[in-house]
Amino acid sequence: MTSPQETPPEALAGLDGFTIEVPSWAYGNSGTRFKVFTTPGTPRDPFEKIADAARVHALTGLAPRVSLHVPWDRVDDYERLREHAADLGVRIGGINSNLFQDDDYKLGSLTHADARVRAKAVAHHLDCIDVMRATGSTDLKLWLPDGTNYAGQDSLRGRQDRLADSLRRIYEALDPEHRLLVEYKFFEPYFYSMDIPDWGTALLHCQALGERAQVVLDTGHHAPGTNIEFIVMQLLRAGRLGAFDFNSRYYADDDLIVGSADPFQLFRIMVEIVSQDAHLPRSGVNFMLDQCHNIEDKVAGQIRSVLNVEQALAKALLVDTAALDEARLAGDVLGAHDVLMDAFHTDVRGALADRREARGLPRDPMAAYRASGYAAKIAAERVGGTQAGWS
Amino acid sequence: MTSPQETPPEALAGLDGFTIEVPSWAYGNSGTRFKVFTTPGTPRDPFEKIADAARVHALTGLAPRVSLHVPWDRVDDYERLREHAADLGVRIGGINSNLFQDDDYKLGSLTHADARVRAKAVAHHLDCIDVMRATGSTDLKLWLPDGTNYAGQDSLRGRQDRLADSLRRIYEALDPEHRLLVEYKFFEPYFYSMDIPDWGTALLHCQALGERAQVVLDTGHHAPGTNIEFIVMQLLRAGRLGAFDFNSRYYADDDLIVGSADPFQLFRIMVEIVSQDAHLPRSGVNFMLDQCHNIEDKVAGQIRSVLNVEQALAKALLVDTAALDEARLAGDVLGAHDVLMDAFHTDVRGALADRREARGLPRDPMAAYRASGYAAKIAAERVGGTQAGWS
Amino acid sequence: MTSPQETPPEALAGLDGFTIEVPSWAYGNSGTRFKVFTTPGTPRDPFEKIADAARVHALTGLAPRVSLHVPWDRVDDYERLREHAADLGVRIGGINSNLFQDDDYKLGSLTHADARVRAKAVAHHLDCIDVMRATGSTDLKLWLPDGTNYAGQDSLRGRQDRLADSLRRIYEALDPEHRLLVEYKFFEPYFYSMDIPDWGTALLHCQALGERAQVVLDTGHHAPGTNIEFIVMQLLRAGRLGAFDFNSRYYADDDLIVGSADPFQLFRIMVEIVSQDAHLPRSGVNFMLDQCHNIEDKVAGQIRSVLNVEQALAKALLVDTAALDEARLAGDVLGAHDVLMDAFHTDVRGALADRREARGLPRDPMAAYRASGYAAKIAAERVGGTQAGWS
Amino acid sequence: MTSPQETPPEALAGLDGFTIEVPSWAYGNSGTRFKVFTTPGTPRDPFEKIADAARVHALTGLAPRVSLHVPWDRVDDYERLREHAADLGVRIGGINSNLFQDDDYKLGSLTHADARVRAKAVAHHLDCIDVMRATGSTDLKLWLPDGTNYAGQDSLRGRQDRLADSLRRIYEALDPEHRLLVEYKFFEPYFYSMDIPDWGTALLHCQALGERAQVVLDTGHHAPGTNIEFIVMQLLRAGRLGAFDFNSRYYADDDLIVGSADPFQLFRIMVEIVSQDAHLPRSGVNFMLDQCHNIEDKVAGQIRSVLNVEQALAKALLVDTAALDEARLAGDVLGAHDVLMDAFHTDVRGALADRREARGLPRDPMAAYRASGYAAKIAAERVGGTQAGWS
Repeated sequence: MTSPQETPPEALAGLDGFTIEVPSWAYGNSGTRFKVFTTPGTPRDPFEKIADAARVHALTGLAPRVSLHVPWDRVDDYERLREHAADLGVRIGGINSNLFQDDDYKLGSLTHADARVRAKAVAHHLDCIDVMRATGSTDLKLWLPDGTNYAGQDSLRGRQDRLADSLRRIYEALDPEHRLLVEYKFFEPYFYSMDIPDWGTALLHCQALGERAQVVLDTGHHAPGTNIEFIVMQLLRAGRLGAFDFNSRYYADDDLIVGSADPFQLFRIMVEIVSQDAHLPRSGVNFMLDQCHNIEDKVAGQIRSVLNVEQALAKALLVDTAALDEARLAGDVLGAHDVLMDAFHTDVRGALADRREARGLPRDPMAAYRASGYAAKIAAERVGGTQAGWS
Repeated sequence: MTSPQETPPEALAGLDGFTIEVPSWAYGNSGTRFKVFTTPGTPRDPFEKIADAARVHALTGLAPRVSLHVPWDRVDDYERLREHAADLGVRIGGINSNLFQDDDYKLGSLTHADARVRAKAVAHHLDCIDVMRATGSTDLKLWLPDGTNYAGQDSLRGRQDRLADSLRRIYEALDPEHRLLVEYKFFEPYFYSMDIPDWGTALLHCQALGERAQVVLDTGHHAPGTNIEFIVMQLLRAGRLGAFDFNSRYYADDDLIVGSADPFQLFRIMVEIVSQDAHLPRSGVNFMLDQCHNIEDKVAGQIRSVLNVEQALAKALLVDTAALDEARLAGDVLGAHDVLMDAFHTDVRGALADRREARGLPRDPMAAYRASGYAAKIAAERVGGTQAGWS
Repeated sequence: MTSPQETPPEALAGLDGFTIEVPSWAYGNSGTRFKVFTTPGTPRDPFEKIADAARVHALTGLAPRVSLHVPWDRVDDYERLREHAADLGVRIGGINSNLFQDDDYKLGSLTHADARVRAKAVAHHLDCIDVMRATGSTDLKLWLPDGTNYAGQDSLRGRQDRLADSLRRIYEALDPEHRLLVEYKFFEPYFYSMDIPDWGTALLHCQALGERAQVVLDTGHHAPGTNIEFIVMQLLRAGRLGAFDFNSRYYADDDLIVGSADPFQLFRIMVEIVSQDAHLPRSGVNFMLDQCHNIEDKVAGQIRSVLNVEQALAKALLVDTAALDEARLAGDVLGAHDVLMDAFHTDVRGALADRREARGLPRDPMAAYRASGYAAKIAAERVGGTQAGWS
Repeated sequence: MTSPQETPPEALAGLDGFTIEVPSWAYGNSGTRFKVFTTPGTPRDPFEKIADAARVHALTGLAPRVSLHVPWDRVDDYERLREHAADLGVRIGGINSNLFQDDDYKLGSLTHADARVRAKAVAHHLDCIDVMRATGSTDLKLWLPDGTNYAGQDSLRGRQDRLADSLRRIYEALDPEHRLLVEYKFFEPYFYSMDIPDWGTALLHCQALGERAQVVLDTGHHAPGTNIEFIVMQLLRAGRLGAFDFNSRYYADDDLIVGSADPFQLFRIMVEIVSQDAHLPRSGVNFMLDQCHNIEDKVAGQIRSVLNVEQALAKALLVDTAALDEARLAGDVLGAHDVLMDAFHTDVRGALADRREARGLPRDPMAAYRASGYAAKIAAERVGGTQAGWS
């Protein structure tokens, strides 16, 4: 049994270069199809979103990058936005395209039967690539919401072929330092078929495109019961894990705070990550959040999220791999399981607080945030205008 | 083997008094959290919704009632709405309350920790009861969207106790001819816990209230794999099946056209219904639709839906119950199954067309609708104003 | 943040009277339909099973009772078995009936269409009641495996009615101090319908029988995504939670070691238990294990299991209920969640080891078991004969 | 609307070369982990299994091949078995290996940490290849049951690497006319991880092996809600769909009669097949059954199964593809869906009976089987010996 006070600082050295990218949209309003509740202090523009994100980084030291979403985060002057971020100690991360809010996309975007609509959806990505150039981003993230609601509605095969063609056009427009990150999703917003429903489909398209096309694993985008850490392992083995979209789910794509629904699953995912050294910056895996904060405080929700990921990684780093290997070779099923559980049951919060303190960060970022009065401050300041949301 | 031409008209006599209630909101716009697409011709007010619903009834003879939703269908003069419906050959059905769109309900309505919010949610139902009196409706339908997103967020037990108290206040306000229909849902719009997640919970509350409290079974509100016809049977056995909300699902509460995702399941449900004579008007079971038409034509979608339910019932009426009983008593597993499948595989469309023709209805309501020019007509007429949706 | 060394002994006082009942069959061989692997040292008879169970209790102090299964644990002299248990420091717990291994039960037992088969299944329970009298057991546990594989195979309603009649006959045969514990299961061994598939059905039958009929919640017997702690709460609220069958699942009724698949879920269940004082002996809730050890060491697997339950309960006892209530009343979603998570993240293993030591038990029962040589000893001694399994 | 009598014979020409392969083990006993029920007349050896299979072909004209399973179908003289089959009008189809019943495989076979066990599992396939040579089979089917029950039990990545190596050894041993068919499965017999859990993993291994490695899609081996026809389409598009294992499921790998649980899903699968001409013999797709008949008559169950597949294919052939394309191009969601449903709702049983009659087969194979007395005959003849099962 390892107890917290015994966690030697060097055991957590693997945390040193580890960072998490936060999504600009997590600071805006979100909700369900039934209702989007609002909160005082919600940002009205990308500058305010980045300010909130920077606050998360200032308190945790974990979140130096902010993903943007086009068109939600469209601004006239990206150079100004970039400087604004730099002034606040963060920078622009991946650029996310939007294929689900144009009336033309009702029946599909990159897969649409009409070449005009497909061209429009491709062109949108060329715009996004321009934003990448303007912001210094290297990751173009594409979640394809396309799908159908009724059997027979469209040709499943025809849609794949059209998708392959559209993706090729986008991939060819990338600069050499750019990556295309392709995200799959089991269902929603369509309910009979999705055009990229699983990692196998995403992988086939990436294989066809080239080495700079990689798969995004959103932890909420799988069928019930799916062993997600297995997919993490498999994509790493295939050299195609580009990024995570972290969040939690109990049922569907619930987009709850990562680590809130099944902390053991998050730990198991990080164990696979650590076992293939994918937590190290050189792996190129981008650890992003993609969540909603429908009813809870958004900035605090983001702080909680990055701390949860850090905690899971810290526990994964504590796994006694020598003991694990020994038990596995001996066929000691319970012994090997117990080695893993020993790390999971260890309370790393004290060690992480020590680590933060040593870096000039607050020991308890959640408490520091509450004590800071930031929530009240933005509620007082951000009056008037239109709160940002999914539009 | 039964073939269509052999379906004797008397075999379908069980259809005679059978009706389906359509929801006013199916004629308005709906969508997902990602996007609500719009369609030309969408109604702007309850009068236009009822006009569309009446068209469904005129073409099918199956849908003489329209459910209203408060506040979406609030009007100044319910008497006028009632007459409008009567003029068009339909009438007002159940009244649906709304507990999910008020900012006060962010953390709950009938279950909220704050007595003020609970009182407001109860008072909303007293308003609905007034609408019932004004429209002649006898069914108050209550779907409780309340729930929590995070473990620990609230006391699961405390919420039940508060819910029981709120429901009692509503139940006591009903007139003697009124029923309270309580609907359960597995998840959404909350993702950790729902306060009425299953039929067992709905039933316990109905038992506590009294005989005029009954359960609503929405076919999309169950866990994956749930045997829904079993629940139909069980609620009928307990004397507590008040109504259906019909729709289809592949994944979650997809709210697709009933019968489009699993026509065999719909047939099995209707077999249980017929086996306990619950398709007959005297059973008191209200067969309602509750669907979305996010991407397809709404009026046509409703016509298809009521035809699908009729078709499933017609097939259920064809089951050779004598042969079934004989096979069951003999322990002939495949034989009994085959009796059921014989009815399912029978093509009843011709017999149903004959039946419609004999009643002065179009043989093919879908074709008649397309030929009627109604869609073009409402698209041309309904210009300006705000299209109705979930608000 | 609470750290392990700060866990004051009195915080864990709620563990004092808490016990777990272990199943005799966990010490025998089990497997899947594909293969039952064997292990040296597996018991050959109920006496050896009880010896193994007693070893679990000796090392943990948590498991003073052993459930028996009839006919697997049938012996000529129950008085001798009772004394054998007493000599080893344990006693006989609940008696489990078997309705799934007789050729007559192919199409059902208590629900069978043939009255002769139903009478046989009822009579088996009268035998079990005799075993209860002979062993001093007060819990008759009935898991109904009955169901059908094909739609139409039998009347769902007819089976309920026959079941109700059979259960009544069993219930009437109980002595006044006896309870009937009725267990539900989502699916398996039948795959179209189960006759008691959910807690609602079990509850309806218990309500019809009387107050000494209560529901058994097996943690592996639900649909994917089911919120089990909600059902725990609801059954406690209804006064009908008789017992648990603890185990873990990822997919179906996997029957893995409790706490191994989702330790946070087990914690949440224990939080509901503690919040209604159901962990106290006076609650009457029987906390049982029902697991398989297909590939791991069985005795060690049982030790791990009871420790996992103890750990989850210990964490649940640490929840700061005053802080929780305060956050809930304030509508502080994240604050309330964090109070819960603080308890979950606390490493209680040291405090539990201290507690064991103070009671004369080994600090680390797993290590003590490995060091004891018991596994080698029984492997050497138990040679010849037929290893016990599910027959 | 198409009605049965209008189905022109030429519409069903696509059935002409279509065949289904039946599994020898479907004629033996099977069951769940709880019980294997027996039936009089169950075959005692491979010769009797083939006799039963031949009866299915004689009555339906659809099932000219029988899959064998090694070691269950091991015989001394494969030439004699081959002649026996030929005498009865059928031939030997694919050879299935067995990696789940040797005590050595408790923790894995092709993935085992111990090279000795892996070599044994590879060697078993060399034996199977010898059986292929002796029987003229060209398909080696490999279902990998390997997996783990507990997180940490073994290295997920290490198991993949060992699997890749083992598969390569097997693939290299194939003759040029042989194929390796690799089957994936979501879960069971292991419950934490499976080593080939999904089509993506199977495909990656096939890609690494070479063109004669193809994927087997078992319709019962997916997560709840999975869109199986999408995977069919995708594997065909990738040129890697080698075979089907047809069966039905409501919950897990229920192995019920194909088409009994969701006939609309089976139809949708056949629609994808037809749309890519994969029903034609030249496609190389082997349409196999893999089912259990735990409680129903086995030979009748197999007849029902092949008829269900034929019926689904017949309906798929009736889809009006011109109308479908037109509706799809027009973006007519409901119109396209209705074209598909028109084919599904058509009762093709009469047309199929006509077709059988024209080929000298009984119009109603189920009735012919019942009338034949075959079940009574084999029950009378097959007395003594050991009934075949999964061992």
